[in-house]
Amino acid sequence: MTEAERTQGIDGPAGARRTGERILLAHGSGGRLTHQLVREMFVPPLDNAVLRTLTDAAILPALSPGARPVLTTDAYVIDPPVFPGGDLGYLSICGTVNDLSVAGARPLFLTWALILEEGAEHDLVATCAAGAARAAKESGIAVVAGDTKVVPRGKGDRIYITTAGLGELPPGRELGDAHIRPGDALIVSGPIGDHGATILAERHKLSGPALRSDCAPLAGLLASLLSLGLGVRSMHDPTRGGVLGTCHEVAGRSGCHLALEERALPVRPGVRVVCDLLGLEPLALPCEGRALIWIAPQDAAAALTELRRHPLGEGAAIIGEVFEAPAHGSPVTLRNAYGAVRPLDLLSGMDLPRIC
Amino acid sequence: MTEAERTQGIDGPAGARRTGERILLAHGSGGRLTHQLVREMFVPPLDNAVLRTLTDAAILPALSPGARPVLTTDAYVIDPPVFPGGDLGYLSICGTVNDLSVAGARPLFLTWALILEEGAEHDLVATCAAGAARAAKESGIAVVAGDTKVVPRGKGDRIYITTAGLGELPPGRELGDAHIRPGDALIVSGPIGDHGATILAERHKLSGPALRSDCAPLAGLLASLLSLGLGVRSMHDPTRGGVLGTCHEVAGRSGCHLALEERALPVRPGVRVVCDLLGLEPLALPCEGRALIWIAPQDAAAALTELRRHPLGEGAAIIGEVFEAPAHGSPVTLRNAYGAVRPLDLLSGMDLPRIC
Repeated sequence: MTEAERTQGIDGPAGARRTGERILLAHGSGGRLTHQLVREMFVPPLDNAVLRTLTDAAILPALSPGARPVLTTDAYVIDPPVFPGGDLGYLSICGTVNDLSVAGARPLFLTWALILEEGAEHDLVATCAAGAARAAKESGIAVVAGDTKVVPRGKGDRIYITTAGLGELPPGRELGDAHIRPGDALIVSGPIGDHGATILAERHKLSGPALRSDCAPLAGLLASLLSLGLGVRSMHDPTRGGVLGTCHEVAGRSGCHLALEERALPVRPGVRVVCDLLGLEPLALPCEGRALIWIAPQDAAAALTELRRHPLGEGAAIIGEVFEAPAHGSPVTLRNAYGAVRPLDLLSGMDLPRIC
Repeated sequence: MTEAERTQGIDGPAGARRTGERILLAHGSGGRLTHQLVREMFVPPLDNAVLRTLTDAAILPALSPGARPVLTTDAYVIDPPVFPGGDLGYLSICGTVNDLSVAGARPLFLTWALILEEGAEHDLVATCAAGAARAAKESGIAVVAGDTKVVPRGKGDRIYITTAGLGELPPGRELGDAHIRPGDALIVSGPIGDHGATILAERHKLSGPALRSDCAPLAGLLASLLSLGLGVRSMHDPTRGGVLGTCHEVAGRSGCHLALEERALPVRPGVRVVCDLLGLEPLALPCEGRALIWIAPQDAAAALTELRRHPLGEGAAIIGEVFEAPAHGSPVTLRNAYGAVRPLDLLSGMDLPRIC
């Protein structure tokens, strides 16, 4: 998003807002100021027929016949809340849309709850509302319920957002790590680590590498893929813990061994630079717009072709293969360009708080 | 809940926890400590088949045929997080269950997202998890998805919880303020202001009045009432803004005038004492276990009888009547014991942050 787009997104709906205004405790009291904030800052950009009713609970249209509801939630406390490629509001919608999408569900409706710190700038809140509205539009979902609380100065950090999402799983669709079997291929939908490297570069004030968070809603990309009826076994979005953390969880749940190919891993040069400077492993950095896809080997090429047709899947690559679980040793390994294989253990020392 | 009950609720499931331990930033990293926290502290008390899978999104059984999904969310930042009659965890489930229940929906599934402050005590987190589990059991719902983030010291206040809830609205059930008409009666399901007075008394360290939050899940009480097929027009839970704030919102949405009877308002003596000491109006204090019910006049007596049969509705009372909107003047009025009528305006000066 360019600065012009961001500004455009805010100024229309939140015209009543004046630059420099700040959040007061009374904005969270449930009284006049709360209503004003909601009506002026949130309802206009996120507008839809259900949200407009502003009742305690959103009554929604029935799900598709035979569809199963899918429910997810995430809290977003990222620091800084505005970063190249997105903001906390945009991310909060993308993350929840992606959790539903990788489960094979069609994202439908989201809730959006804010914890604002007294003194937070209206401009920041409006930027996040505009970001949320943009992500909702891009992913074809509606934000149908919300809540705003304000905590005193020093009891928060400007803005925290918690999103929950409701989607529907079409009848007969069965994805899950239990379906993964030896021989399956592992695809990543694009370059890894962009989001984590971007946030850390911002936080350490590293300039130079032109980095941008990959955060994006994957609903469209993954719906296209699933519509082909290929042998997709399971999908995940490698957020907290990155590709490495996700692979360990999947190895644990599937009981298989995941072997990654170092040469095949798509990592942007700027991400490598940040990782070298800060001593980080790209495989452990969070992504916010990437999917890991386990798929039957005979379908991997077709899936790759389909993914690469979509702007969010241009950099898709096959990065690994599934094997029988080894009797001992790490369940996740990396083979380098010379054929040497090393275990990829969970990095217990690399705790990266507030990146997603 | 007695201290004995509370302790019992924690010690079983969270046996691995040691008294005095505190939350570290690494508990929010998505790595080993996050998993340990979730597996040891949250999954055991909240246990159910869906939550146990610990996947990105909870795949749920299909809703009842013809039912419409209902979605709601609330952020809970209450201070103090443990208070007579409940805790932040218990409240977080009750509040969301109640939002669904007053919409006429059957609460089914909830999500539970935590923002923990570095240094928060494990004991406090476990108390809230036990409280959430107790509320879930009492209201017959399952917590099926969650998230835990940790923010640095001074960027939060021990624990904030955001809950979202999914319920289903049976076919043909139509509640809403648009159905309210002149002549309708207004019932409250029990004494008002207990929750708000309790929290404020705790915060001001007032001792003496034996106060206890009314926080409770209303799913059972309201389902019993609705099962009678009476002319219930609309229901609300008077949380932020209290009965007064809710009445103003309803008056606005229904276009009617709401006339309350001072003599009929059930207010406990302890609540009156706190209000007198702190200069507060009981009508503006939040309740967390009460419903306001607008009902056809001929059905009000039957509703009252049914409500009073339930432990949570013992103190139910008819507190007002609906009239045509006046040409001018306040849309909400109070008639005192001598027949004098005064307008009840929204109290813009009484901002009560962090009570719910």
